[in-house]
Amino acid sequence: MEPIRVGVVGVGNMGSAHAKNILDGKVRGMTLAAVCDIEPQKLCWAEENLPGAARFSDYEEMLQSGLIDMVIVAAPHYLHPPMGISGFRHGLHVLIEKPAGVYVKQVEELNAAAKQSGKLFGIMLNQRMNPLYRKARALVQSDALGEPKRCVWIITNWYRTQAYYDSGSWRATWAGEGGGVLLNQCPHHLDLWQWIFGMPKRIRGFCQYGRWHDIEVEDDVTAYAEYENGAAGVLITSTGETPGTNRLEISGDKGKLVLEDGKMAFWELDTPERELCFTSKDGFLTPAAACREILPDGEDTAHIGILQNFANAVLYGEPLIAPGYDGINGLQISNAIHFSDWTGETVELPVDGERFYELLQERASHSRRKEHVVSEISDLQGTYNDRWKSR
Amino acid sequence: MEPIRVGVVGVGNMGSAHAKNILDGKVRGMTLAAVCDIEPQKLCWAEENLPGAARFSDYEEMLQSGLIDMVIVAAPHYLHPPMGISGFRHGLHVLIEKPAGVYVKQVEELNAAAKQSGKLFGIMLNQRMNPLYRKARALVQSDALGEPKRCVWIITNWYRTQAYYDSGSWRATWAGEGGGVLLNQCPHHLDLWQWIFGMPKRIRGFCQYGRWHDIEVEDDVTAYAEYENGAAGVLITSTGETPGTNRLEISGDKGKLVLEDGKMAFWELDTPERELCFTSKDGFLTPAAACREILPDGEDTAHIGILQNFANAVLYGEPLIAPGYDGINGLQISNAIHFSDWTGETVELPVDGERFYELLQERASHSRRKEHVVSEISDLQGTYNDRWKSR
Repeated sequence: MEPIRVGVVGVGNMGSAHAKNILDGKVRGMTLAAVCDIEPQKLCWAEENLPGAARFSDYEEMLQSGLIDMVIVAAPHYLHPPMGISGFRHGLHVLIEKPAGVYVKQVEELNAAAKQSGKLFGIMLNQRMNPLYRKARALVQSDALGEPKRCVWIITNWYRTQAYYDSGSWRATWAGEGGGVLLNQCPHHLDLWQWIFGMPKRIRGFCQYGRWHDIEVEDDVTAYAEYENGAAGVLITSTGETPGTNRLEISGDKGKLVLEDGKMAFWELDTPERELCFTSKDGFLTPAAACREILPDGEDTAHIGILQNFANAVLYGEPLIAPGYDGINGLQISNAIHFSDWTGETVELPVDGERFYELLQERASHSRRKEHVVSEISDLQGTYNDRWKSR
Repeated sequence: MEPIRVGVVGVGNMGSAHAKNILDGKVRGMTLAAVCDIEPQKLCWAEENLPGAARFSDYEEMLQSGLIDMVIVAAPHYLHPPMGISGFRHGLHVLIEKPAGVYVKQVEELNAAAKQSGKLFGIMLNQRMNPLYRKARALVQSDALGEPKRCVWIITNWYRTQAYYDSGSWRATWAGEGGGVLLNQCPHHLDLWQWIFGMPKRIRGFCQYGRWHDIEVEDDVTAYAEYENGAAGVLITSTGETPGTNRLEISGDKGKLVLEDGKMAFWELDTPERELCFTSKDGFLTPAAACREILPDGEDTAHIGILQNFANAVLYGEPLIAPGYDGINGLQISNAIHFSDWTGETVELPVDGERFYELLQERASHSRRKEHVVSEISDLQGTYNDRWKSR
């Protein structure tokens, strides 16, 4: 079978990494055909480092070139939906970087375009390849934990200094990025939260804007979520704490699961709690619950795993692990947290996309110009693995 | 010096334990002089088990008897304030069980009566004797952690079965107890939360009523708190999960503290984070933070420790570790959580005591009669130590 000819738009941190991986033959069934960027120096870099790939400064030209079968969209957040839509309109398969977009309204349009095209649609939610999270999901989905009761995720290991925020004019602005930690650092967690535990029914969000840094967007967030079955959830994230924590606790009718420091502990009850509650004559029961460490199956194939799965989906019909359509879920939660904080009210999901867009536009229209931008720095610099170490 | 002659009102779980401890000579400087209960069988028990103590079925008679110098109030929650006030009016020292009361309005009156009397006023917040919590407080107060940033406390190890709630007609009713987990199981934590981390400025509370049990009050609570300095806090508690969690995490400008499973870990930064944030040129800094286990000093003297401290305060002027006046703080938080949930709004502290009382009365007036009450069971049965094991 002919390999899939890939075009990458946005040769920044992520786009260049994907292009290199494909060029280096790390993804069976994919070949790097073209790259596109509006910045000349990125194309110079590509000329040197991505031999054989056609170079475009105009995205539409790359789409129309006939050189590619699929496009990987690794441009800034706001551009993911329109670029994805263009890709579908040109009959290409599309794989977008996370987040799916900045506001759900535009992602609904993206999803509609994908559906209409019939082409494959993926999203780079590479943490879905993390075997610990896969295992946690399997335990929840297989009912090993029983009916879900609570999910508490403390994710404060996203420490950033002011230098990080000073490194790009678009960074941490309403106009340029559309949000802070919720849009930039947290989308993987927001996706995993719902992928593992399900979508909340309503959310009350609390954001602090520029709490730890001289920025206009949120860098400190607490969210309270309620689920259809009455379960409750809390998610806490920040870029202003160090050393941070990454601890996920899920409790259910049959036990409890805790992921921390790259380890997963599972307490399993002999009898489901709901049954004990109404049959025991002992008011202060402390049911036996064996605790064991759950070892994940396999390795974390990360970004390459997502690319390989996408290639297999195109070539052999393998089901997508991270369908592009799922991207809206984490964004729904992100938008709901902002919406709730802006209105001071609990927000039902799905959020009112039109109203959210208006509120976001209001903020974007007042985005201040940054004055102390130093230079672009890589999002992957050094700490990528560390960041996920405690998973 | 003459020993303090103690009268105990309420010979239930806690009252009988205090009386026994004093009778057994476990508190230097206190002697058990009298007990009081409205239930004849409790006085029968006292006749057999508390030899030498005068027995009263009328509280006022005990206060007027001239037999006692101080009273320990271990009656149901609602009675703590009026009984304390009576004690002060009779010129006695007063030590009340927790919670200080059910609504702040009545505790304000209690505090005023205490102040007017000039007598000593204590509250049985025995967890303040727990060396781990004392150490945690010392680290926060001594600025070893630096400016406080966040405090997250998951306290879901208060599991109760339906049998517990069926064991008393007053239990878990608005009229009889005035609340659920916030009033019965959680007052120690609510006190420690503010004792260690300070009083919040505002609170948004989320309660679920009868979520896990056939009761009318809350058995599942999440609270989000904001502090004067911008710090954020979360407290989660429930009586419907097992195995539960008791994990307290406090982060500050100089590090992080985690108490779990009876252990305390302290991550200490070489340089305060706020300084690093604005001086580092590295956007993705991961500052070195040595982690060490903090060993508590001394033993947990618990209830006897509080009694001994009170005796020493009366006899030798030793400062009280748990002044009765502090009791209102945890109750402010508890009332604020209810108030917030009832109104759907964030509540500024101190709460509007009059308005809260009205809303509580509304609920109490609709309290349903319980139909399946089995028999009183001891709050201390078996699991007391287990409950605090993971501190």
